[in-house]
Amino acid sequence: MSLFKARVFVHLRPSVLDPAGEATRSATKRLGIDGVTQLRIGKSIELEIEAADKDDARSKIELMSDRLLANPVIEDWTLEFKDEQKALKN
Amino acid sequence: MSLFKARVFVHLRPSVLDPAGEATRSATKRLGIDGVTQLRIGKSIELEIEAADKDDARSKIELMSDRLLANPVIEDWTLEFKDEQKALKN
Repeated sequence: MSLFKARVFVHLRPSVLDPAGEATRSATKRLGIDGVTQLRIGKSIELEIEAADKDDARSKIELMSDRLLANPVIEDWTLEFKDEQKALKN
Repeated sequence: MSLFKARVFVHLRPSVLDPAGEATRSATKRLGIDGVTQLRIGKSIELEIEAADKDDARSKIELMSDRLLANPVIEDWTLEFKDEQKALKN
């Protein structure tokens, strides 16, 4: 078994409005920061998972992302593995 | 002026408990997914910003992250620029 580190990004679909993002964007103007043309807020889930190999880790994370981390009606998700991978002693 | 694409990750400090992350982690077990040893939930802010150059974009985003996107008491943030950068016609 090995320990894999990964990050799942969950973000609203482009077609879905992001009121929180828009409110934050207008707040940047009040802070005196100009030039922010787009701002969208999503979730970043950092996780560590024990798995037989990378494919095993990937399929576990895909199931978790589809069923738990993202709302498939309005959200998409993307998965990034971090380079570090530690072999675990059985 | 150029248009820069960046992503800011806001995440709880390691010393701060993450009840939402823990609840999600135990939910993965109920889904029949074993092996998730750690799971922490943060924010991922995708933004586009017009700036004179990359340093200008960086300083604007740093101010925004410190004052608006992250709660400095319990959160850290990291900034990643996306490779694409478009020159804007003045």
